[in-house]
Amino acid sequence: MKAPVLAADELERLLSAEFPQAFHADSGFKILEVWHGGARVRRGFKASGLRPGGTISGPVIMALADVAAYIGILASIGWVPLAVTTNLNINFLRKPSPGALIAECRLLKLGQRLAVCDVAIRSEGQEDLVAHATSTYSIPPGER
Amino acid sequence: MKAPVLAADELERLLSAEFPQAFHADSGFKILEVWHGGARVRRGFKASGLRPGGTISGPVIMALADVAAYIGILASIGWVPLAVTTNLNINFLRKPSPGALIAECRLLKLGQRLAVCDVAIRSEGQEDLVAHATSTYSIPPGER
Amino acid sequence: MKAPVLAADELERLLSAEFPQAFHADSGFKILEVWHGGARVRRGFKASGLRPGGTISGPVIMALADVAAYIGILASIGWVPLAVTTNLNINFLRKPSPGALIAECRLLKLGQRLAVCDVAIRSEGQEDLVAHATSTYSIPPGER
Amino acid sequence: MKAPVLAADELERLLSAEFPQAFHADSGFKILEVWHGGARVRRGFKASGLRPGGTISGPVIMALADVAAYIGILASIGWVPLAVTTNLNINFLRKPSPGALIAECRLLKLGQRLAVCDVAIRSEGQEDLVAHATSTYSIPPGER
Repeated sequence: MKAPVLAADELERLLSAEFPQAFHADSGFKILEVWHGGARVRRGFKASGLRPGGTISGPVIMALADVAAYIGILASIGWVPLAVTTNLNINFLRKPSPGALIAECRLLKLGQRLAVCDVAIRSEGQEDLVAHATSTYSIPPGER
Repeated sequence: MKAPVLAADELERLLSAEFPQAFHADSGFKILEVWHGGARVRRGFKASGLRPGGTISGPVIMALADVAAYIGILASIGWVPLAVTTNLNINFLRKPSPGALIAECRLLKLGQRLAVCDVAIRSEGQEDLVAHATSTYSIPPGER
Repeated sequence: MKAPVLAADELERLLSAEFPQAFHADSGFKILEVWHGGARVRRGFKASGLRPGGTISGPVIMALADVAAYIGILASIGWVPLAVTTNLNINFLRKPSPGALIAECRLLKLGQRLAVCDVAIRSEGQEDLVAHATSTYSIPPGER
Repeated sequence: MKAPVLAADELERLLSAEFPQAFHADSGFKILEVWHGGARVRRGFKASGLRPGGTISGPVIMALADVAAYIGILASIGWVPLAVTTNLNINFLRKPSPGALIAECRLLKLGQRLAVCDVAIRSEGQEDLVAHATSTYSIPPGER
């Protein structure tokens, strides 16, 4: 895998400093690995993310998909925090048991203005997909 | 508009009791109106929902879209809390200023097993769309 | 409704001349109405569009959704034939009987570089939706 | 790869017999490979599929994505021609030059009632993606 422009610890430091609403001690996100073209991100289990039926709620899974795409893009283009999601499509495939989730983001396209990502989400330690998302990020002009 | 199966206050009471992770005093959701076939839901502003650029983050908007669809469906079919999202597609159209958001859900289809919703999200008091989502919910068999 | 930049007959003339692969005597498309911000397009019935079950096939419906969005955008920005779809999401809601289909496109956003459309598709003369799509078109720089 | 329930030649024979509108001598589809969980399908080049700019039109690519998913599902569950698409989301990533396209479908989920597919589309002989789709098919009850 090609080296990222920003390493995992550097990204975590920048995100904590400039996007503290989503990346703080209690938010549960941990960057496991980044490379040029993708990222793996863990979301620790929190009881506050459960929904009726005892599974993890949709918004928690969508937030993880969005965060993993953001991290995979920033790892590939450098620190452009104003990159924003323009489209996200997600299919929920299996109800996850209470536990940590792992999202793996792969960039399908990295253009000057748009990046398109594929995000696969699994329960930690399991093979089957919990959810699958594709999303598009808009990169501000002049930032690459 | 046709009368809902469950009124707004009844829905808020049930959601607070059985889905307290998402519907609690501090979650900011308020059901403004429900009818058979849709709902309007408000999400009050919270500084914790901001992202770089000073706008409201994508996951906050996605959560509102999902919640508004859930409420629009339950208002139309009655209390079936195990209804779950199977697909959500969202386009982010304009960056919302810090402030409350209003989501309006309309059911495009209400079948025995699937409901498909259209959700329009605006900043409170404004006409332009902030985001537009479509989502599909699976209704457990035997619940209707 | 605000007047379109290009009228229906002018659009049909341009499309037949410069996009004859899709707009020819036998393709079945008819522009019913255009305005600044949208269009209504008819697709006549052809037996070649049927699929097992006797309903109209998905690709025929997707082509109509895409064409209606293209026409709604060109009616609003003028003749920019190199505008291209970047994303399309479609939900198939009811199986259409053999017969003509009507697509109604409404622009949700018309920016300098991107246009986002909502497309509702019905069987001619019926109220219920057959399908609902949202799509994003990229507008080449300098064309607006 | 696990053996398919229906082999490629058997599927082509059945499709030609029962879905001749889409699978005929001139439609350009060729099943390259099927397995339990997916398929690779080729769509030969036809000048009738071009659009302004000299690239292959969106509807041609969408039709290929839908057909590849259909074939991947039937290869995995057997001859259930009444399986129908309920949702398709597609991102167009690069404009394909005139030439054949190859779609590779992988099932992300194969349930009793729903199958969810990931479809990657490339120009023949090239690595980069032209388009990426995810789609959901509904399988009629009692057919599996």
